Order: sequence, then structure tokens, then C-alpha cells
Amino acid sequence: MGGEAGTGPGLSLGELAVRLGCELEGDPDARVTGVATLQHARSGQLSFLANPAYRQALARTAATAVVLAPEDAGECPAAALIHPNPYASYARAAALLHPPPVFPPGVDPSAVVSPAAELHPEASIGPHVTVEEGAQVGRGVRLGPGCVVMRDSVIGAGSTLVARVTLGPGVRIGERCLLHPGAVLGADGFGIAQDGGRWLKVPQVGGVLIGDDVEIGANTTIDRGAIGDTVVEEGAKLDNQIQVAHNVRIGAHTAIAAMVGIAGSTRIGSHCMIAGQAGIGGHLEICDRVVLMGRAMVTHSIREPGMYGSGIPVEEVREWRRGVARYRQLAKTVERLRRLERRVDNLTGEGPGGESDD
Amino acid sequence: MGGEAGTGPGLSLGELAVRLGCELEGDPDARVTGVATLQHARSGQLSFLANPAYRQALARTAATAVVLAPEDAGECPAAALIHPNPYASYARAAALLHPPPVFPPGVDPSAVVSPAAELHPEASIGPHVTVEEGAQVGRGVRLGPGCVVMRDSVIGAGSTLVARVTLGPGVRIGERCLLHPGAVLGADGFGIAQDGGRWLKVPQVGGVLIGDDVEIGANTTIDRGAIGDTVVEEGAKLDNQIQVAHNVRIGAHTAIAAMVGIAGSTRIGSHCMIAGQAGIGGHLEICDRVVLMGRAMVTHSIREPGMYGSGIPVEEVREWRRGVARYRQLAKTVERLRRLERRVDNLTGEGPGGESDD
Amino acid sequence: MGGEAGTGPGLSLGELAVRLGCELEGDPDARVTGVATLQHARSGQLSFLANPAYRQALARTAATAVVLAPEDAGECPAAALIHPNPYASYARAAALLHPPPVFPPGVDPSAVVSPAAELHPEASIGPHVTVEEGAQVGRGVRLGPGCVVMRDSVIGAGSTLVARVTLGPGVRIGERCLLHPGAVLGADGFGIAQDGGRWLKVPQVGGVLIGDDVEIGANTTIDRGAIGDTVVEEGAKLDNQIQVAHNVRIGAHTAIAAMVGIAGSTRIGSHCMIAGQAGIGGHLEICDRVVLMGRAMVTHSIREPGMYGSGIPVEEVREWRRGVARYRQLAKTVERLRRLERRVDNLTGEGPGGESDD
Repeated sequence: MGGEAGTGPGLSLGELAVRLGCELEGDPDARVTGVATLQHARSGQLSFLANPAYRQALARTAATAVVLAPEDAGECPAAALIHPNPYASYARAAALLHPPPVFPPGVDPSAVVSPAAELHPEASIGPHVTVEEGAQVGRGVRLGPGCVVMRDSVIGAGSTLVARVTLGPGVRIGERCLLHPGAVLGADGFGIAQDGGRWLKVPQVGGVLIGDDVEIGANTTIDRGAIGDTVVEEGAKLDNQIQVAHNVRIGAHTAIAAMVGIAGSTRIGSHCMIAGQAGIGGHLEICDRVVLMGRAMVTHSIREPGMYGSGIPVEEVREWRRGVARYRQLAKTVERLRRLERRVDNLTGEGPGGESDD
Repeated sequence: MGGEAGTGPGLSLGELAVRLGCELEGDPDARVTGVATLQHARSGQLSFLANPAYRQALARTAATAVVLAPEDAGECPAAALIHPNPYASYARAAALLHPPPVFPPGVDPSAVVSPAAELHPEASIGPHVTVEEGAQVGRGVRLGPGCVVMRDSVIGAGSTLVARVTLGPGVRIGERCLLHPGAVLGADGFGIAQDGGRWLKVPQVGGVLIGDDVEIGANTTIDRGAIGDTVVEEGAKLDNQIQVAHNVRIGAHTAIAAMVGIAGSTRIGSHCMIAGQAGIGGHLEICDRVVLMGRAMVTHSIREPGMYGSGIPVEEVREWRRGVARYRQLAKTVERLRRLERRVDNLTGEGPGGESDD
Repeated sequence: MGGEAGTGPGLSLGELAVRLGCELEGDPDARVTGVATLQHARSGQLSFLANPAYRQALARTAATAVVLAPEDAGECPAAALIHPNPYASYARAAALLHPPPVFPPGVDPSAVVSPAAELHPEASIGPHVTVEEGAQVGRGVRLGPGCVVMRDSVIGAGSTLVARVTLGPGVRIGERCLLHPGAVLGADGFGIAQDGGRWLKVPQVGGVLIGDDVEIGANTTIDRGAIGDTVVEEGAKLDNQIQVAHNVRIGAHTAIAAMVGIAGSTRIGSHCMIAGQAGIGGHLEICDRVVLMGRAMVTHSIREPGMYGSGIPVEEVREWRRGVARYRQLAKTVERLRRLERRVDNLTGEGPGGESDD
């Protein structure tokens, strides 16, 4: 809980400042070997201040250096790495101090790779991986343990499938993507036709197209298109347990938190932010730069950028039940109000004193 | 994005008409090799019109043939395959033009199959599959890469486990079922007993029984019964990331969209349609032919067929917050109304002018 | 459907009474070999009565013995195993009659285990398992088919990963834990920083720490911490398809039903009970002994033990839509009420007759 030691020998603050493009106030030869929160940092660790709520933790931190904004630098008891976007600078520093593991190129003997697949010699294929015929695996790709890459799928250079990721037939993944365990891309969409009281399967003959620099969370599912592709554009970030139905399009640099469901053929713009457990109906359009709050229920298209929410947060359970009962009585309440308005109209001998618009 | 080429040489329209039971208006020797939307179809492709919203795309389509209803045939600029249920006919045509892959019978050398399992010689067992003792795998079954079939499970003829499907002990799957990657059938139900402030596990000794022609989506979970079986009846279709708790029964030909949760011991009738993210409490009964809208929250049994919904869709965030505040004040609002009613009663010198029924 | 035969020769009621600490009314030499519901039990089976709703099934049961509370013993037509907590006693009996399978120690030849991993000689490693360098697998641990244990993860004695469970790097699992298929522990948390219109990944360098006696359901995901650990304390029970974000802490003996989402850095107390599909926002505190009803939406911390709920259950669809319309008009309704209050004030020549507090 006391922060994390990096895996390397660490970096000097001077080198960090150069690589992050930060201004340094402090000893350029001091070294940090890992990152920690302001509260838990020890000497030799790097911390950051990006959220004003943690400003009071700054004064007491034992970190060797802190990444922070110019306006906070004056109160920093440690060396300061100063940048107008301290959170992004921290992210870069953490990546330098905790570099991702490097997997040696080659194919684990337990992997089953079709001779009709194309593997770049610098790809790393882990244990129990399956790669079917026609698949193409690019330079520097890592397929972790248990991944399944079905026929004719294509994975761009530098992408990582951490473990137990499944790509259905003909899924195309861009470069530098990161797919977490249990993600399933390219399963059949939910296409069924009524046929005399039974459901008939509608073949799902489209594909899945994932742009560059996309991250996809654990156990997230992205179905193949019914006809044409389901698309996630470059730079989009998807958290865990998200469901993306057939023929959805998610715009570039849109971020989606866990457990969001997006029904078929809906188009989501770019630079949107969608919080956890939101649900978006089918055949809708969400324009660019829309923010959906957690649990938002979207049943109509949204054509104006902005923040949108729905849902009534918890109450103590008796109060909740009373609230539901009052909600159910709203029709009667409005009717009582209308009747009372008429009585007052009669009393005053006038016409309606207020517009009656329900 | 421009539609999909089929994998075979295609079919003549005459042959299609015969196999689909359609009336053909057009050249019976013309051929189609794949399907596409009306908008994206090219020559040599088959399209369909099932939703009136797309009627205007019909006039401009470049498809060689279109499956459509009799009332739309007059406006078709291409060959017309006419059927009163054009969507089902399209589904059949797409299945003919895009037949599912055929997997050669046999066991991949990397699979681990217990000598005490029964495999039909025409079953196809893919890489990294595990089949435990006592399991029975029927004729024409495909177990795709990474599937796990635990002891004493039974898989009926013609069923497909696409990849990385897990069947717990004693799960029984009917014929012609299709299970998508990451589905887990027969994990323990959530049975726990309070025991002096700690939870004691209640052994889940029931099974899972899946009827014929059932489809189960990616990462869906269907728990084994506590005692007795969890049951999905024939022809039911389940989308991705659905949770079916112990001892639930889902009726025949019911369709359930993604992310629906069904709590323990609830029974859902046949021919129901349940939209995405709905939640159904435990120990309830949902009768036949119930339609639940997206995100529906069901806390009581439903005994009448019909459509049911709940939830308040998104508003701009300030409006949403004001709405929540007004909802919280409903009690006070009703009290103000009651007080005002009494004042008006006093003014008129009469008894209550309106029933006061809250 | 008629109850389950146990896997052993069964037990005498006398032996059961001793091992469960029950009082026995009946023949101590009678034997039971499996469990069943009161309704479906046959001779030779054990049943239980824990829920008063099933009391009428007691009179007609064909079970050989029934576990029940002292107040119900008088009406038992079979042998009675009497205990003040009949459900927990039933759970113990069922575990005796249906013992979990014992897996022989050793490593399946298809498993890929790093020579730099530490396996206890009494661990059981199933087919297609991957264990990476630095991992430690304790005594009596079972790693079922397809599990992935990444570098430096630690699994305590007696824990079971049923099948296809993934542990990311450095995940620590306590003793006697039970992890169901498809669970993913230690995937990256959803940490992203805005950087000039693009998202920059924030390295997730913390870990996951799971206490003793924790159960984790199928396809549940528990992300690693951003800095510091995500923690599930001892005795907590998590159902299927739950999402636990980075740096969440779940208290001891808390039970969480399926499809609950918990956003980042939220702390949940001990002995809480959270029903299905609840959603809890980030950076919140839920105190001990809180009960959340199904689908509860939590956007603020909860500091008082008790039961909390939210959401409006389904109505017939036209009624639902009318309700939403009325909800949207609440502002106008309150305005009409205010206007009417003023008119009545004018009529009476008095000041406001009721506080106006919205």
C-alpha cells in the first residue's frame, strides 16, 4: 500500500524533467525509482498533485519529487517537476519508471498456429494461443496466454492481447492497441427474425474494425456487424464489461467506463465521455463531446454537446418506497390540483388564473 | 463496409426463390454471391427491405436482387424476391450465401480429452480444449479453441461452442445450440447462509439444462441450480453478458438482449422479449408473451402479457438534478396541495371539494 | 429436478446430528445420500425448512429427514434435525453429502509452468494452465483448465481457481478462496489522462489483494490499483459479472450479488449486502452493515447502517410513458400550485397560508 517500486534503477530528476518537458525546482541528480501517492510516498519515490482535493497532503509528503502545476509549486516541500498538465506528466513519468514487460519474440511451443497464418518474426505468441488460417499478426504484437485469433483476423503492429482474448473471424485491430483478458471481439451480433413463433438466426456477416491506440477492458464484448462493420475509432478507451452491439460506431478519443451497454447500430461521436452502467438504445446518434453521467438511460438521440444524466439516487428504504408511491399517484395529484384551480376560478368569478397545461 | 462477399460461388435467383419459397420477379439466371444493405449493395449482391424506414433506400439500390414484401415489390428497381416475411427470408438467403465454416471431425493434438469421455467420431475438438471424464459430445459438435467441458456434461448433436466456453460439471446442452466465447454455464449459484456473522457456502448441487436450438451470447453466465436445475427451454435466444442465476427457468422461444440480470428461482414464460439491461428480481413469475423495455426494473411478478417499462431517460444535467430535487420534495408538494384544499374548503364553507386520497 | 444424489454412500442421521450439532428426533440409523427440496425429496434424501413460505410443503414431504428450527419440529412428518440456524446446518449437511471433487496433486502435461514459479507439491495444475515466473501456488491449490497465473502472483493454500480464471501480475489470493470461470483479477484499472484532446494511459502499478475465504463469481472483474492495491477483505462473497474498479476496498464478510459495479477508490464496509445490478460511484464511503436493494444507484457516501434503495419498478408501457411525462412536468405543476396559493392568499386577504419551500 506504500507505493510501488519500479522495475529499473530509476531516473534522475534532471533526466525526468527533460523527458517530460517539465520545469525542475530541486536537485537534478536526485533519483526516483517508483511512484506513490502523496500520502504514502517514501524517500526515493515520485508523487503528483493533480486534484485540488489532495492539496493538503502535499505539505506532509515524504516523496522525493512531486509533479504538479505551476500554481502549486510554491507549497511543495520536495523537488518539484512543474507542468501545466501534471496528471499527463505523471502518467509519462510512471510509464518511464514502470515500463511494461518486454516479451521475447517467438512462439511458445504450446501455441497452435496455422501454417496459413502470417506471424511477424518479432511477434510474441504465448502459451496455449490459437492462431487460425489467414490471420495476420504484426510486428511487436504480444498474444498472451490463451488468446484465440480466428481465421483472417489482422492485428496491427505493437498491439497487445494480454491473455484469454478472443477475436472472431475477420476482426481487424489497429496498431498499439491493448486488449485485456476475457475481451471478446467479433462474436455474432444478436440478430434474430420472427418466423412463425420461432426465432430464426440472421447470419452476422459483417466484421469488427478497431482503430489505432484503442484500449479494451476485461470481459468487454464487441459484436461483429450484421452487414458491414462494428467500428471503434482511434484512441477510444473502453473499460471492463462493456457491451457493444452489432454495427455500433464509437468515435475517436471517446472514453467509456465499465458496464456500459450500447445497442445495435447506434453511433457515438468523438471525444465523448460515458460513465459506468449507462445504457444507450439502438439506432441512435450521440453527437461529439457528449458526457453521460453514471447509469444514464438514453432512449433518444442527443444532438447537442453537454452533460446528460438520469436516475434517482438511493434513499433510505422506507423513504424510497414512499417516493415510488407518490410517483405512482402523480396523475391523481395533478387532477386534484386542476380541480382546486377550477374551484378557485369559481370563487373569484374569473376565468382560469393560471395556464393549465398538462 | 460495402456489404460482404459470400464464401461460395453464389446462387442464381431462380434457385434462391425455390429454396426460400419466394415469388421471383426478375431474371432467374442472375446470380448473387453475398448480401449488403440497400444503401451499400453493389451489383451481384442481395439486399432486403424489412423495415419501412428504409423504403426510400430501395429506389436507389444497386443490388442485383432485393427480398421484400408484396406491398413493396412494385417499387423495386432490381429483381424482387417476394415473401410476406422478408426478414426471415433474408435470414435464410444469407445463411445460404454465407454458410458457417465446416470443421473437420477429429481431435486437435493439443486437446486434453479424458479417456472416460465419449466423443462422437464426427465431433470436431479444437486446440487447447479440455473434456473431462464422463462427458458426452454428440455428432457434429464443434468445440472451438479453449473450451472446457467438465465431468459428466452432455452436448447434443450439431451444437457449437465457438471458443473459450466453459461448461461446469453435469451441464446438459441440447441439439443445434450455439454458445459464444466466454460463456460460462454451470458455475456455482450464489448460495450463502449467515452463520454467526460469517457467510457459509451452500453447496450448489443442481445442474443446468439447455434445450434444443438455444443461442447463448459472449460472456453470458448461467449458474447451476442450488437443488434441481437452472433451465433454458428450446429456441430461447440469449445475447451477451446476461446473468441467469440458480434455478431460473426461461421459457421456450424467449429472446433476451444483452446485460439482462435474472435473480434466483425466477420463472420467465415463453415467447417473451426482454430488452437490454433489464433486471428481474428473484422468486418472481413472468408470464408468457411479456415484453420488457430496455433497463426495465422488475420487482413483482407480471401476470398479464403486454409491454412493460420503467426508468426516466436522460436530461441535460442541470435539468436532471432539478428533477431529482423536485422528486425529493414531492411529499412537501402534496402536503402544500392538501393544505390549500383545506383553505379553499374553509373559504367556500363546504366540505372537501375533491377527494383527498393520498 | 427431483433432488440430487450425493457422490458417496451417504450418512446416518445419527452421524449427521453429531457433525452438525443438531438435536435429532428420529431413527439415528436411517441414512440419507443426497439433498432435495421439501417438494421433490424422495426417501433417502435430506431436505430443509429455512423459509416460512415453504412451511406447508413440510407436511407433504417424502424426505427421510428434514433440517429445521425448533419451532417447526413439531410438524415434521420425517426425522427432524433441529437447529436454531437450519439454513447453515443444511449447508453443512449438503457439503458432507456432496463433497467437492478432490483433484490429484501434480501438473497436467499440457500445462506451461515457468521453472521460476514455486508450486507446492500438493497443488493440482490442470490442462492448458499457464503459470509465469515468480508465481507462488500454495498447498492444496487447484488451478482448473485454462487458468492463467501471471508473474509474481501468489495463491494461498486450499484455494481453487475453477477454470479459465486469469490473475494479472502480482495478484495475491488468500487461503480457501474459490474463483469461478472467467474471473479476471488484476487487469489494468481504467486510468487515462487528458493530453491535448487525446487520452494518455496512466500506468496501473498497484496490485490486487484478496483475503481468506473469499468467493468470486464467473466473469467478475477486479482491477489492479493505480497506485496501491484494490482489496477484498476476508470472507467477502462476490457473485457473477461484478466490476470492482481500481483501488476499491470491500470489507470483510460483505456479500455482493451479480452485476454490481463499484467505481474507483470507493470503500465499502464490512457485513454489507448489495443486491444485483447496484451501481456505486467513485471515491465514496459505504459504512458497515449497509444493505443496498437491487439496482440501487449510489452517488453519495452512506454513513448510517440500514437499507437503501432507488429506482421505480416497471409499469405497463403506456402508464410508464405517462409517468415520465408527468415527471417532466413537475416544475410546471409546482409553479401552478404556487400560483394558486397566491390567488388564495389574495382571496383571504392574508399572508401565505402555507410555507412555500421549493
